[in-house]
Amino acid sequence: MTSYRDAGVDIDAGNRAVRLLAEAVRSTATPQVLSDVGAFGGLFAADDLGPGTVLVASTDGVGTKVELAARHGRWRGLGTDLVNHCVNDILVQGARPLFFLDYIATASLVPEDVAEIVTGMAEACRAVGCALLGGETAEMPGVYTPGAVDIAGTIVGSVPRGELLPRTGDLRAGDLLVGLASVSPHTNGYSLIRLLLEGREPAPELLDFLLTPHRSYLADVDRLRADGLDPKALAHVTGGGMFENLPRVLPDHLGARVELGSWTVPAGFATIVEWGGVPDTEAFRVWNMGIGLVVVVDPSQRDAVEAAGEPVIGELVELRPGDDRVTLTGTWR
Amino acid sequence: MTSYRDAGVDIDAGNRAVRLLAEAVRSTATPQVLSDVGAFGGLFAADDLGPGTVLVASTDGVGTKVELAARHGRWRGLGTDLVNHCVNDILVQGARPLFFLDYIATASLVPEDVAEIVTGMAEACRAVGCALLGGETAEMPGVYTPGAVDIAGTIVGSVPRGELLPRTGDLRAGDLLVGLASVSPHTNGYSLIRLLLEGREPAPELLDFLLTPHRSYLADVDRLRADGLDPKALAHVTGGGMFENLPRVLPDHLGARVELGSWTVPAGFATIVEWGGVPDTEAFRVWNMGIGLVVVVDPSQRDAVEAAGEPVIGELVELRPGDDRVTLTGTWR
Repeated sequence: MTSYRDAGVDIDAGNRAVRLLAEAVRSTATPQVLSDVGAFGGLFAADDLGPGTVLVASTDGVGTKVELAARHGRWRGLGTDLVNHCVNDILVQGARPLFFLDYIATASLVPEDVAEIVTGMAEACRAVGCALLGGETAEMPGVYTPGAVDIAGTIVGSVPRGELLPRTGDLRAGDLLVGLASVSPHTNGYSLIRLLLEGREPAPELLDFLLTPHRSYLADVDRLRADGLDPKALAHVTGGGMFENLPRVLPDHLGARVELGSWTVPAGFATIVEWGGVPDTEAFRVWNMGIGLVVVVDPSQRDAVEAAGEPVIGELVELRPGDDRVTLTGTWR
Repeated sequence: MTSYRDAGVDIDAGNRAVRLLAEAVRSTATPQVLSDVGAFGGLFAADDLGPGTVLVASTDGVGTKVELAARHGRWRGLGTDLVNHCVNDILVQGARPLFFLDYIATASLVPEDVAEIVTGMAEACRAVGCALLGGETAEMPGVYTPGAVDIAGTIVGSVPRGELLPRTGDLRAGDLLVGLASVSPHTNGYSLIRLLLEGREPAPELLDFLLTPHRSYLADVDRLRADGLDPKALAHVTGGGMFENLPRVLPDHLGARVELGSWTVPAGFATIVEWGGVPDTEAFRVWNMGIGLVVVVDPSQRDAVEAAGEPVIGELVELRPGDDRVTLTGTWR
């Protein structure tokens, strides 16, 4: 007789992981959540949606940061990384989160590690009023390398149609780029970081920097709006860095000129840039280099920006034929 | 100088994969889809939602079926598997799909394989009127074993609150269990199948059976409703088989008695059961054994069930203390 346990699947560990996930799900429930855990799908009352509302959805993973975090047992931060990355991805379209679902897969489930991941997810969800509506944990011995974990998530948020971002038609040359600080490489550029770490022993401060979770910018953008700023566009500086993420929110005739030196690049970036001899053209494509979100505002709002205490890191420029979409001026070192 | 390419990430392959995904996304767009590909999140107009509507969301993967499919290059079916599994998971709560997002991760992206997967997803989405709203492809060399791929997806659907299933309060002893045929093990029990295949060369028909994609039951349930059937509950027979999935939709005082022999178990199940000497108590926990969806209807609808041509495979029974939730009677061989 052959049983399922012979196939290497630890059913008890799976059940324990599901229970831990269920507790996290309950801890984040918002008034709209209708479902009991154990239902096939999560239920969310759509009473506040309807005419004029747009749902914004995004799926993402945290990429190879999982490896570095796994090696150092920093599971909780990965859950935070995942949620906040997704929160920012829909924030740049003007949306606030409604609910989130996660997917955690590994060769062999360690319920305590899964618990740390979902605790991080639940904390990040609660911080932004997002319901953790459900998730899936999978144990796939032949697919994942031993000890490796992958996590991915899907967020769904909403925005009134008139408040969708970017307001592409309003963007003009001379608009200010306001830079909101990142706290680490967030969740991008970790394949290169892994390569640079090979054969090196990072100082504890550097390791802490590299493993600091992705920030959510929802509260920052709320604060800027409360201070009177009216963002025309927001760019989340993720994979591709400023070079690829600024153009995603700009019309074809506009580019961005970014003034290096207008903000302080965290020391951790200087270290890894130096280790690899990474040129700026590459570093600003792979890493956020200290700016996690760029807010585009009208130049008439310069005083309000300064009052808010955030740096102006550049401006939009009219492109001439052959111009690069994003140019870096000055130096950050 | 160290560049991102040195880190083993094939940016061109990634970009090609993203383009292929973008084409699939466009091919499934429903009138509610607002977003252009390239936006940070997918946009879906919520005008038809609002008061009295419930969103139902579910995340799932296809589990270790990916290994068997990968070994035989059957990528397209995996995309179909993923979407249909998710469609059924929200169908059992009464919901119809609105949109779907996918996550495809691997050690090293092969754009042609990704194209096959997304083609299968797009076909399955179009078949049920579901928009493929976005997705993420990730290349993670240290996390996935060489050649392995994992795919997961999130579906969001909607249902009027009054039509939510199961209608637990309406369920009674004597209610009929109507069984809708599965076409393969769908997406469950593949860790055990992998074990049973070790050192064996499956006949081509068996391999085809094992790799046949998960069915969607949306059209079947629509047809049954058009024939006058009024389902009180639907159970999707996935991991845990009938033993675990029937109780999920039943109140505590009710159990299910399933009559083996009331439907024809596909020959492929008989083969793998024989290979492993798997007892019924295990086989019906690991595999669907030929029934992919169970529809619970009032006994007064027996004539309509017979007219619809679907088998009655059992009934609900009142539980006495110590009774199993699900009992199998008779024999299927």
